[in-house]
Amino acid sequence: MFLSVLTVDDALRALHTARRTPIRGVPPALGVVPAEPVAAEAWLPPAARATVDGYAVRAIDTYGASETLPTFLELTGAVVMGTAPAQDVGPGAAMAIPTGGLLPHGADAVVMVEHTTEPMPGHVELLRPVAPGEGVLHAGEEARPGDELVPAGRALRAADLGLLAAAGITTVRAHARPHVGILSTGDEVVPPSTAEPGPAQVRDACAPALAGLVREAGGEPRLRGIVPDDAAALEHALQAAVAEDDVVVVSAGSSVGARDLTATVVARLGEVVCHGLAVKPGKPTLLADCGGVPLVGLPGNPRSALVVFRLVGVPLVRRVGGITAPPPDATVSARLDRDVPSAAGRLDVVQARVHDGTATPLFGASALLGPMVRADGWFRIPEAATGVGAGAEVEVTLYG
Amino acid sequence: MFLSVLTVDDALRALHTARRTPIRGVPPALGVVPAEPVAAEAWLPPAARATVDGYAVRAIDTYGASETLPTFLELTGAVVMGTAPAQDVGPGAAMAIPTGGLLPHGADAVVMVEHTTEPMPGHVELLRPVAPGEGVLHAGEEARPGDELVPAGRALRAADLGLLAAAGITTVRAHARPHVGILSTGDEVVPPSTAEPGPAQVRDACAPALAGLVREAGGEPRLRGIVPDDAAALEHALQAAVAEDDVVVVSAGSSVGARDLTATVVARLGEVVCHGLAVKPGKPTLLADCGGVPLVGLPGNPRSALVVFRLVGVPLVRRVGGITAPPPDATVSARLDRDVPSAAGRLDVVQARVHDGTATPLFGASALLGPMVRADGWFRIPEAATGVGAGAEVEVTLYG
Repeated sequence: MFLSVLTVDDALRALHTARRTPIRGVPPALGVVPAEPVAAEAWLPPAARATVDGYAVRAIDTYGASETLPTFLELTGAVVMGTAPAQDVGPGAAMAIPTGGLLPHGADAVVMVEHTTEPMPGHVELLRPVAPGEGVLHAGEEARPGDELVPAGRALRAADLGLLAAAGITTVRAHARPHVGILSTGDEVVPPSTAEPGPAQVRDACAPALAGLVREAGGEPRLRGIVPDDAAALEHALQAAVAEDDVVVVSAGSSVGARDLTATVVARLGEVVCHGLAVKPGKPTLLADCGGVPLVGLPGNPRSALVVFRLVGVPLVRRVGGITAPPPDATVSARLDRDVPSAAGRLDVVQARVHDGTATPLFGASALLGPMVRADGWFRIPEAATGVGAGAEVEVTLYG
Repeated sequence: MFLSVLTVDDALRALHTARRTPIRGVPPALGVVPAEPVAAEAWLPPAARATVDGYAVRAIDTYGASETLPTFLELTGAVVMGTAPAQDVGPGAAMAIPTGGLLPHGADAVVMVEHTTEPMPGHVELLRPVAPGEGVLHAGEEARPGDELVPAGRALRAADLGLLAAAGITTVRAHARPHVGILSTGDEVVPPSTAEPGPAQVRDACAPALAGLVREAGGEPRLRGIVPDDAAALEHALQAAVAEDDVVVVSAGSSVGARDLTATVVARLGEVVCHGLAVKPGKPTLLADCGGVPLVGLPGNPRSALVVFRLVGVPLVRRVGGITAPPPDATVSARLDRDVPSAAGRLDVVQARVHDGTATPLFGASALLGPMVRADGWFRIPEAATGVGAGAEVEVTLYG
């Protein structure tokens, strides 16, 4: 069965697909992945503005101003928000200006209102000098034409949306969300909505959970239903998925017979990269390249399937969707409160609760989802290790 | 202006709203927040199943089996996936069974196929004994009626969706996503789609960025457009928002005049909790309770607005949406590569790049979004500190 078993890293290298989703113009939104850096088209801001409330002045007129010897300037007007100043600031003159107001011609600095008084109408008294540029946001200080606003390959974040809006960018060239076909196999599997399954039947837990992980990875799940343990039916369903989807995921059944069936059918559709992964849980994982479309055959046990999909499927979906800078994982260091054995040469993924810096591993048959639902996160015991002792520090990746 | 300045923690305590979004039944999906724990309605699995490929047996028949002295059992049939076994397993008998197959009556264990041979048709040879329950997932081992499947107050994760599907739960009682009204104020503010703003105008960067943060917090943004600096217009717009939304956010303008206007209008609609926050950037933040609806008046500078909304708005939106167990932040420890001064009594939020364990702070006028876009995350300098020295370790919260 396990003709070829690879480590997770080797498997991801071997399945290094060149496939990327199509690029098209879309409005900026959370999670949109620019296919190329987005550049500014114009000066931002287009002209200098005040960054404080105060008076627009010529800095040279303020030199020497102090509390004991204030400088008097003539107040020649006020800048109104949203409109161009009515006049210039000449020598010896000042204009009142609010934060964000357009700096009048002639002025090169803004004195904060806190450093002034208005001793009589039409005049302002400065208690401090300002240097040219003080209290001013310069034209192009946010960006000049051609400057990179947001990078390629990173899903847009909230601040990116703000900067793109400020720059008037209403369309970005971005990768489409990858369509990820999800098939479940097994004569015993029935839809989750089945009210009263027979005693030998199980509801399909994998497909909805995988759909959730696909969305987290920036993909669009395409639920392709449940296929019986029948070679012709499976080949037909997989063919359609490979033709229409960017990544295909099939929960390959938990029995040897079901896995053999999947392996046989997949071998007809593409090149099998490995028949197993050196990971627990999740060894019975089949990876294949079907004409450029990565296919992941997952173990039948839902918890194993989810562990493997996080390790292999999520990076694949991101890669196909053009994400080169994936979002950071939330992690926390914690001390193990008991020994956890492992076998050398195999990556162990252990579910854990974390409380007050202590990690408590959660065990249980890999057919159970409960340990994963109750866990705060999971940690790895690397291939080289033969276990982790109580008191050792582990890095727990937290569920979002 | 700053009649009352609170710390972020005090402000969140003072604005402790009791408001929660309505509860109704919805299909389980990523991000849905159960309002009460979801309990199993039936035994899961409903009956015992094999967890390995092998032979269903009576454990008592296997005692003493070894490689040198195998035990012979009569092979009386095979369990077929998805169907109830045709017969029971009697004394001295065994039935072939695949992983996931329903355990036949009479059997209480499954011997792995690896520990058996089939020396002649109709018989199986066991090379090891099994204890009762070995190779078996018991009825109710995942959950029994009334057991908690997923907790209240935590947005559903992928594994939760799997467990709920396995249990046939197609509806959960959950909080509605909070509607968050977003208003921008300012005579100078124009929509992001404005192709050629006048030199004194600025495109609205806050609203799209805030909408992104609202979505990240599990809320549904309701963009209420741009309101001019006019008391009657602002009061009208805020009244509508307070009447229809669960949380209201208004970017209150960056000038003293605009902030005063907002404060005056908000005071008519509810109880002002504070006129300022002890945080940099973001001091000019107005918080109010408008008949149970929290209202956040944000600084006009987009970066300040986003800093404050992360600190105050995101926790508020989550609270109103019933999230009591928020998702973990991704954080990383890094050493500062330069001194960062701060003032005591004020929380400083510093944008930073992180590379190889080193954090480089990014400065720039708070009117600029660029430093936040280029940052990998941000760190805090707490109220009590007067700065952080080069070489000190800071905890950087990474952007998702």
